[in-house]
Amino acid sequence: MQAVVCHGPRDYRLETIPVPTRGPGEILVRVEAVGICASDLKCYHGAAKFWGDANRPAWAETEAVPGHEIAGRVVELDDEASQHWGVDLDDRVVVEQIVPCWSCRYCDTGNYHMCQVHNMYGFKRANPGGMEEFMVLSTASLVHTISKEIPAAHAAFAEPLSCALHAVERATIGFADTVVVAGCGPIGLSMIAGAAAKFPQALVALDMDQRKLDLALKTGATAAINIAEEDAVARVKEMTGGYGCDVYLEGTGAPPAVLQGLNMLRKLGRFVEYSVFKEDVTVDWSIISDDKELDVRGAHLGPNCWPAAIRLIESGRLPLDEICSHQLPLSKFQEGLDLVASGTESTKVTLIPGMA
Amino acid sequence: MQAVVCHGPRDYRLETIPVPTRGPGEILVRVEAVGICASDLKCYHGAAKFWGDANRPAWAETEAVPGHEIAGRVVELDDEASQHWGVDLDDRVVVEQIVPCWSCRYCDTGNYHMCQVHNMYGFKRANPGGMEEFMVLSTASLVHTISKEIPAAHAAFAEPLSCALHAVERATIGFADTVVVAGCGPIGLSMIAGAAAKFPQALVALDMDQRKLDLALKTGATAAINIAEEDAVARVKEMTGGYGCDVYLEGTGAPPAVLQGLNMLRKLGRFVEYSVFKEDVTVDWSIISDDKELDVRGAHLGPNCWPAAIRLIESGRLPLDEICSHQLPLSKFQEGLDLVASGTESTKVTLIPGMA
Amino acid sequence: MQAVVCHGPRDYRLETIPVPTRGPGEILVRVEAVGICASDLKCYHGAAKFWGDANRPAWAETEAVPGHEIAGRVVELDDEASQHWGVDLDDRVVVEQIVPCWSCRYCDTGNYHMCQVHNMYGFKRANPGGMEEFMVLSTASLVHTISKEIPAAHAAFAEPLSCALHAVERATIGFADTVVVAGCGPIGLSMIAGAAAKFPQALVALDMDQRKLDLALKTGATAAINIAEEDAVARVKEMTGGYGCDVYLEGTGAPPAVLQGLNMLRKLGRFVEYSVFKEDVTVDWSIISDDKELDVRGAHLGPNCWPAAIRLIESGRLPLDEICSHQLPLSKFQEGLDLVASGTESTKVTLIPGMA
Amino acid sequence: MQAVVCHGPRDYRLETIPVPTRGPGEILVRVEAVGICASDLKCYHGAAKFWGDANRPAWAETEAVPGHEIAGRVVELDDEASQHWGVDLDDRVVVEQIVPCWSCRYCDTGNYHMCQVHNMYGFKRANPGGMEEFMVLSTASLVHTISKEIPAAHAAFAEPLSCALHAVERATIGFADTVVVAGCGPIGLSMIAGAAAKFPQALVALDMDQRKLDLALKTGATAAINIAEEDAVARVKEMTGGYGCDVYLEGTGAPPAVLQGLNMLRKLGRFVEYSVFKEDVTVDWSIISDDKELDVRGAHLGPNCWPAAIRLIESGRLPLDEICSHQLPLSKFQEGLDLVASGTESTKVTLIPGMA
Repeated sequence: MQAVVCHGPRDYRLETIPVPTRGPGEILVRVEAVGICASDLKCYHGAAKFWGDANRPAWAETEAVPGHEIAGRVVELDDEASQHWGVDLDDRVVVEQIVPCWSCRYCDTGNYHMCQVHNMYGFKRANPGGMEEFMVLSTASLVHTISKEIPAAHAAFAEPLSCALHAVERATIGFADTVVVAGCGPIGLSMIAGAAAKFPQALVALDMDQRKLDLALKTGATAAINIAEEDAVARVKEMTGGYGCDVYLEGTGAPPAVLQGLNMLRKLGRFVEYSVFKEDVTVDWSIISDDKELDVRGAHLGPNCWPAAIRLIESGRLPLDEICSHQLPLSKFQEGLDLVASGTESTKVTLIPGMA
Repeated sequence: MQAVVCHGPRDYRLETIPVPTRGPGEILVRVEAVGICASDLKCYHGAAKFWGDANRPAWAETEAVPGHEIAGRVVELDDEASQHWGVDLDDRVVVEQIVPCWSCRYCDTGNYHMCQVHNMYGFKRANPGGMEEFMVLSTASLVHTISKEIPAAHAAFAEPLSCALHAVERATIGFADTVVVAGCGPIGLSMIAGAAAKFPQALVALDMDQRKLDLALKTGATAAINIAEEDAVARVKEMTGGYGCDVYLEGTGAPPAVLQGLNMLRKLGRFVEYSVFKEDVTVDWSIISDDKELDVRGAHLGPNCWPAAIRLIESGRLPLDEICSHQLPLSKFQEGLDLVASGTESTKVTLIPGMA
Repeated sequence: MQAVVCHGPRDYRLETIPVPTRGPGEILVRVEAVGICASDLKCYHGAAKFWGDANRPAWAETEAVPGHEIAGRVVELDDEASQHWGVDLDDRVVVEQIVPCWSCRYCDTGNYHMCQVHNMYGFKRANPGGMEEFMVLSTASLVHTISKEIPAAHAAFAEPLSCALHAVERATIGFADTVVVAGCGPIGLSMIAGAAAKFPQALVALDMDQRKLDLALKTGATAAINIAEEDAVARVKEMTGGYGCDVYLEGTGAPPAVLQGLNMLRKLGRFVEYSVFKEDVTVDWSIISDDKELDVRGAHLGPNCWPAAIRLIESGRLPLDEICSHQLPLSKFQEGLDLVASGTESTKVTLIPGMA
Repeated sequence: MQAVVCHGPRDYRLETIPVPTRGPGEILVRVEAVGICASDLKCYHGAAKFWGDANRPAWAETEAVPGHEIAGRVVELDDEASQHWGVDLDDRVVVEQIVPCWSCRYCDTGNYHMCQVHNMYGFKRANPGGMEEFMVLSTASLVHTISKEIPAAHAAFAEPLSCALHAVERATIGFADTVVVAGCGPIGLSMIAGAAAKFPQALVALDMDQRKLDLALKTGATAAINIAEEDAVARVKEMTGGYGCDVYLEGTGAPPAVLQGLNMLRKLGRFVEYSVFKEDVTVDWSIISDDKELDVRGAHLGPNCWPAAIRLIESGRLPLDEICSHQLPLSKFQEGLDLVASGTESTKVTLIPGMA
């Protein structure tokens, strides 16, 4: 079968490899769609977080098959697997990106997303990801069924959407809150979808790209501010009687968006940080303490949020035809990576192994 | 009467000014003790936070009398004041540093410490601070009685202690938590006192000064690590099965202490930031989000914590004779500022207007 | 003008009284609609909570004008009132039922809905309610504008809806929660509307009246159980892998609904009690502690939820034409009270002073 | 060896049975002390909670060895057990009462104390309790070491103390809170010890027995009210400016103590229910909702609180010589049960298998 194989930074190749063999309790799926994540791109570009530097060892491995935003069709399973996940032959499934160890302190207390070992699909040889025609879902995985009636690319979008929903949960949004989302890429739009599902007082989208802002308004934002054209901090203060927003969800990974959030929040506000940053962030931490007594809350992955993400996708509420902007065959993975890298033309780029 | 008057950065002078006049509902106190805070020193040194820069206006004013860690004796009051605060003639009182506007959104919702207007004693002409022989407590103030049986310098310590207790409340410490406090100056020692009052599993003090670490152990720390001599992150991980501490209270205001905390915390841990920083802090925000999903919680002032601070001081539990290391007459205010600046000899320096 | 005047239990009379006079900072409104609440009926029937008994004094007063679910048109105001609430002549407004004292410990900390004094429109002579042609909104009130484009009865529904939204906030509903609402009267339907606005995993309505259950499904419930026909506890356990629901919102005021909730919840679940009970509730409190370690959270009024209630009403999401089932002129107030008493024909009964 | 064996309600017998055999990974301990809990007495008296009734099946079994407040000495173990719990031969250990299934939804999310299966030592044949000379600690158990330097009865007190500490954690006590504890038996005194360890503003003990109130004051209460002699609600309101207490910890299991708590709390207060009740509780639930918007929080067992209980016991802070009022040999188990039943002479009664 065909698979994308990582041979190191900037060296991903389409190769023919054997169809993997399922062990007891495991599922073999035919991959229908695999989204390309910003972290896939960072890994491709050789970021230190993946390939190590002076201060930390490499986490990613060569010979791995990338891809952790996966939707597929069950082609082989046994009774154990069927009962474990409530899944049948030919079901369409999505699988959580993390493959928990189920024995560290975090896994033992319901926080499997913070698993100390932290294996994920798509970065190591032991857990080949979805950029291949067939893949095996290991027994430690979390597998969910999803409708067959929707495009496969929409199904694979459950991964970024669940992450964003978890970030939204971290924000404890109330009916009276004015919520700002920074960035209208796949994660930012998903945050908007999730925050809208909490019915806040106002939901403001920020981006520099008018096309994405328009999409944000279709996704549930009640206002959109083009930060390239307007003073967003001033606008948000104006909308809030001079105080600032109650909640700021950071989904850009760009350091200036952190300072923007610290400045835009009211005192005692909540800042949710979901992003992975390429560079360090330099800000005055006195804003967190002395000036505003903020709550800055990190968010990682989408624990317990996959069923909600699936419901939201299946509900038809979201403009997924526009969000899932590009589908490409596996063979055009390089074009896919380049689309994500340029950022301006695409929103979510998905590889479709079954596409000619 | 004598008073220290601020004429701008590095220009504080001992002057003779009229005894202030009390208005209706106000209290006139004879100042018994006024502590010198690190922020007094930053103001003295001309920090941008106080005197402004390209990005922000000046907040401090010349002609103001500094000092916001105040203990005094009531020498004049009317019935209105007496009933308002439950205070009588000759009572010893301490007064909260903030003079709330009582009409902004924060004051209206119980968060008077985040008052939008944010007047404080000791920085503006309208609210002269405690570095004078007599001072007026305005009707908007929060006044508390405190025992006359203790040294005046100990009474004035209610201000930094209440701030630290609020930082401790922000940490929501449970019985099973391993808590680390960075810095063993007046605030750090107060955090240790407050955290010890929550009976955590372990309470670790960090500093570079062995004298202060010894004092930390007397104040309630169960372990002390000299970060100049040991790898504190490694030590704390060793103490916690390799995971890291549950809570990190930052009380140094030194940027490296932020990175230290981010590295020392376990995943899903709580970082409480109390400090004011002279410089920006440069760290990888991915630690907050992707790596550890932390809660970073700011803390400012000591709302609702003054009665507890007073109880703790009066309880005799704390080694206040050692913490309140230096008492000087008002005339030696410059020596006091210099002692705080050098940092190595003193812990808390207090001016005693009645001292010869 | 015409007004309903309470002369004691079961003695409410339509009378002609003078149009009230507005004081400085107050608003005179022409009442467009006033809903009849279950508590109005309890007061009418002489409940001890309102008219006292051996253990407590009377709270309600004779000569008062009932009605606290009020929508009206501004017919007279001054600049002070206009600026205070952002309201203009001829605006349609709704007013919160509570008239806070703004000086007790609760009012001072943002919990105005728990005001120690606890004056409300419609129960005392000093605060005549909405069952009259014109009424005065006092300076201590909380006034909100609402669209003129909707029926007046829908506007008045902001009162019960805001109460239900506050109950929903108390439940801290997450995306993964299975939520059960007991009772599909005006409050229960509003709870369903509010819980649906939080996008839970499942939202189950309970009632004995099939008509109301059908309305619940239109309002956002994902399932409806007729407790007269089915074993609701068994059904909910079946829906939740045998565990029970995560959240139970009690909106009936019937004692058996409390036991039902305690039995239906999973361990560590959340029970929100909004209702006022005519009788004591007898249950095994060991279910709260030993059996399930529950959180039972009370809810009262709709603090900070009026803007959200207004948004929800204006959004057109709710089947308000069906919920607001009966509108009657002021002169038919007795028919209105009787309709609420019988319960089976009506959902929300509203008096319309301008109706012939 | 000697053991107490339950043959049904009111039929417990001292018998000679074989010393149990340890399986792989298990520990054999020589029991040094086993406390008699109020629930042991309820089981002895045939309460429906243990032996079933029309509505529920029996949970307790005949032929079981009672006792779940256990301290013992390790006399046999293998490497697996030693590494699992960090325990060595001859260590003194205490064991948590619950024997979790480690596979239900609660065990999987860190809430092992709410285990759906809910096996405990001392009630079923499969998990013989501590009223025997030797006992086996199963692999699913939670075992903790404790000092050999203290009396064995004090060590066994870790069980009730950990339960009380968990109840205290549920109360989220702040420095400014006035906390009331109802009941000064072993649980109530332990709640006082735990609440005192949080340094609240005031800590008030309630009981009808002056001896127990005196013990409460030694344990950390700042005030004691004899409810047989004084109007406790009035006293507490007087102490709190007429508002009522912030936190009420219910540790009596007597229905009137529930109403007392509801009446004594301020609006928006927290009521923690730890007790098991013999009878239903009849109260006006409108106090929870409409009158006060309370939080009623259940508490069960002592999850994650055993290390803190052990520290507190080892600290010497508690008057354990007085709290552990009676130690008896195993042969006098009936006298022990009778002492607990009468309640007036004893506080904690402990059986000491090694006592002649």
